[in-house]
Amino acid sequence: MGYQSMRGNSSQLLSRIAAGDGHGENSSYFDGWKAYDSNPFNPSSNLGGVIQMGLAENLLCLDMIKDWIKEHPEASICTEQGLTDFEAVANFQDYHGLPAFRQALAKFMGKARGGKVKFDPDRIVMSGGGTGAQETLAFCLANPGDAFLVPTPYYPAFDRDFCWRTGVRLLPINCYSSDNFKLTKAELELAYENAQRDNITVKGVLMTNPSNPLGTTMDRDTFKTLLSFVNQKRIHLICDEIFSGSVFNQSEFLSVCELLEEEPSYDRNLFHIAYSLSKDMGLPGFRVGVIYSYNDAVVRCARRMSSFGLVSSQTQHLLAHMLSDDDFTSEYLAENKRRLHKRHGEFTSGLEKLGIKCLPSTAGLFVWMDLRQFLKESTENGELELWRVIINDVKLNVSPGSSFRCTEPGWFRVCFANMDDATMHIALRRIGDFADKLKEDTTQMQNKKRFNKKLRLSFCRLNDGAIVPHLMSPHLLSPRSPLVKASN
Amino acid sequence: MGYQSMRGNSSQLLSRIAAGDGHGENSSYFDGWKAYDSNPFNPSSNLGGVIQMGLAENLLCLDMIKDWIKEHPEASICTEQGLTDFEAVANFQDYHGLPAFRQALAKFMGKARGGKVKFDPDRIVMSGGGTGAQETLAFCLANPGDAFLVPTPYYPAFDRDFCWRTGVRLLPINCYSSDNFKLTKAELELAYENAQRDNITVKGVLMTNPSNPLGTTMDRDTFKTLLSFVNQKRIHLICDEIFSGSVFNQSEFLSVCELLEEEPSYDRNLFHIAYSLSKDMGLPGFRVGVIYSYNDAVVRCARRMSSFGLVSSQTQHLLAHMLSDDDFTSEYLAENKRRLHKRHGEFTSGLEKLGIKCLPSTAGLFVWMDLRQFLKESTENGELELWRVIINDVKLNVSPGSSFRCTEPGWFRVCFANMDDATMHIALRRIGDFADKLKEDTTQMQNKKRFNKKLRLSFCRLNDGAIVPHLMSPHLLSPRSPLVKASN
Repeated sequence: MGYQSMRGNSSQLLSRIAAGDGHGENSSYFDGWKAYDSNPFNPSSNLGGVIQMGLAENLLCLDMIKDWIKEHPEASICTEQGLTDFEAVANFQDYHGLPAFRQALAKFMGKARGGKVKFDPDRIVMSGGGTGAQETLAFCLANPGDAFLVPTPYYPAFDRDFCWRTGVRLLPINCYSSDNFKLTKAELELAYENAQRDNITVKGVLMTNPSNPLGTTMDRDTFKTLLSFVNQKRIHLICDEIFSGSVFNQSEFLSVCELLEEEPSYDRNLFHIAYSLSKDMGLPGFRVGVIYSYNDAVVRCARRMSSFGLVSSQTQHLLAHMLSDDDFTSEYLAENKRRLHKRHGEFTSGLEKLGIKCLPSTAGLFVWMDLRQFLKESTENGELELWRVIINDVKLNVSPGSSFRCTEPGWFRVCFANMDDATMHIALRRIGDFADKLKEDTTQMQNKKRFNKKLRLSFCRLNDGAIVPHLMSPHLLSPRSPLVKASN
Repeated sequence: MGYQSMRGNSSQLLSRIAAGDGHGENSSYFDGWKAYDSNPFNPSSNLGGVIQMGLAENLLCLDMIKDWIKEHPEASICTEQGLTDFEAVANFQDYHGLPAFRQALAKFMGKARGGKVKFDPDRIVMSGGGTGAQETLAFCLANPGDAFLVPTPYYPAFDRDFCWRTGVRLLPINCYSSDNFKLTKAELELAYENAQRDNITVKGVLMTNPSNPLGTTMDRDTFKTLLSFVNQKRIHLICDEIFSGSVFNQSEFLSVCELLEEEPSYDRNLFHIAYSLSKDMGLPGFRVGVIYSYNDAVVRCARRMSSFGLVSSQTQHLLAHMLSDDDFTSEYLAENKRRLHKRHGEFTSGLEKLGIKCLPSTAGLFVWMDLRQFLKESTENGELELWRVIINDVKLNVSPGSSFRCTEPGWFRVCFANMDDATMHIALRRIGDFADKLKEDTTQMQNKKRFNKKLRLSFCRLNDGAIVPHLMSPHLLSPRSPLVKASN
């Protein structure tokens, strides 16, 4: 890199998209990733580095996938046993995807939902990860300026995936901790009416189930209310179910497919599912995204669009073999559930011992952690101040609720499945030390406040460069953190 | 599939993009593919099927790639030797791409251009195939309604890749057979002025070099004129160089990079290259697209957009190993050139013996075949009539010039590298039989015309259901084709 524009402002030279910041990377959600990238924790070489708890990855079962691959050299085109398929695979570029891959995916998706629903392989459309699935659906369903309603808190990258290049808008349906962040009919209607008042065409509702970031699943009553609403308004429902195979308690998870079977009068053209193998199989690098639509025209259009994000046929071929191995997928899904459940239990009970609660959850690779008790002020600024301390001093990349458009400050999404047990325990210890420190500071601060009250006038005069606890910048806390010392 | 919309027109329910036909698949270019798909030639099981000559694929050197893979099990994460890298690869989702992959690609791209230029790995951005590279560049450089000028004939799928979801327009720069379809300054300026007259903002020129469909490379003088033009107008130049490693006569190929080095005063922010491994390496299934931009802002923006079309890390990992093997890539590129040269020579000399000429070419996986002599009328309809006969009766999927927006009827793109020698000879034989038949028909028709002149009045009275040669539908020719008989 190094060439510079020789003349004038490059923003005129480029598109509005390129010149703007619709990519959303200015969010604290991504800032946390950058902090991790610049100083990543490593158990052997960088014990004091930032632990990545901002990435919803699942490393817990990769050993099973590796074992399967070792036992099935014929599934890869890069082994002596599989090389005979090389030409056919290397040259395959049909945007329908390898038929065997779509069949295996359909089967796997049914199984991940407890075998209660069947998927039609001909409705499966490939996309470049979940990212591509969201964008493709937005391109198919809405015009620039149109909106989808989305319950808050919601996955920050939706702003990039769903809106950036499509010009489609996301409008929040506010949810509150008093309801355990459940979607309510009143808020759903309010969001819709607000949009109408502002002359914005609402084309649908976008939701994650299981919820990212909450780790909760949508209950039957709420879901039925939502389905009835979209059907009555004749707007779309996109259910992002990319964590459907990551539910610890399967009986609690209800896929939109199940409800649709119960409601044959609903117009199926309104219903679409986004899926991916990045989370349930822990294979984000393979870029397998799936669109499943009940609308024929959307299937056709999305399939044409999949030219822009086809899955490498090398990867399709491998996964077609793997996912059509019934014994393996059954065992994998069951074991994945067990391990996630165990990890979730250990992590949340570890937090509880430290006096930190999370929203009760039964799914996903993260918890929604309640740090409201530690806010200096109950505002977005207060939350971000606390978050900067956690990133910079505690050296944990967790994601602040405000980056998920949460309406209440003090909540954080914390990922727990992208690390080994030892790293999780280090993270818990760091949180514990930090909580102790904050409690201590709070006590000191309260004492100081009492003291300062008496000295207010003289304090104002003396305040040139003095550090006042409640004004402390996150950075200034740093030298006093035992964790930071330990890491140097 | 099978659900139907219960209420009204689904086009209102969907986006304008989904309801429209901007995907361009209604073109005869894609119709030919469908004809092939419904009855594909197979040397052992379907000798009478359609031979696919509409797909610019390179199967000539896949044996070399297979041999390399067999000798390098460590390059794959699916072998015992390579499985240790599995976690790192399966989880890799950074949109910069694997550093080793970008480095290897940069090296390979330099080598494919005869080692005359160097590429900076930090300017390499991944995309989902060449398809994704084009769309990403359009999103970065132009707003909906803006235009790029493109010399005709041009690759039909650009309408989908560059325009469909971006709303960017392509405006033709007409080129003519009298100039061997070279770009001329007069036509370039005319296209630009026409756009200005119509109040269309021209953001740049898009060109393929080597040309798809012509198989020609751009000569230095024309290229310098073009560069000077875009630099003076301060518009972009996108050079699609995806056939740069498929030039039989390297000395004739000039990459835009070389010319830029000779012209240091030009604003490099205007220049962008699209590349892919689908053609030069014959790996379209792997979906490796590349954007190489000299503009920092475009590199940044395109990189963010590559989230939508990242290459599977499994594939990146394999190719990083393969392309960093210097001995292999040198040998591969040289041998690929030799084999393409040989195939091109055999095919064009075969056609020449049949009295069919092609535009002289030195690159690509196709020739631009001149069938003007066989047109019943020199119009697009005449061309499409001939084309339907070739598809339906001769059973060759070639692509008519009109689908490439060629201004002169009678030219066809014919791909020659996606088949073995035997299939090529069958194709030549079919063309030969067909040419003989057409010549015979023409003579008969001329005789008949002379005869009909005398009988004009009585002919009109008798003409109920009689077959008149120059009105024959392509399908009616079919029963008389010896080829079709042979295939039944």
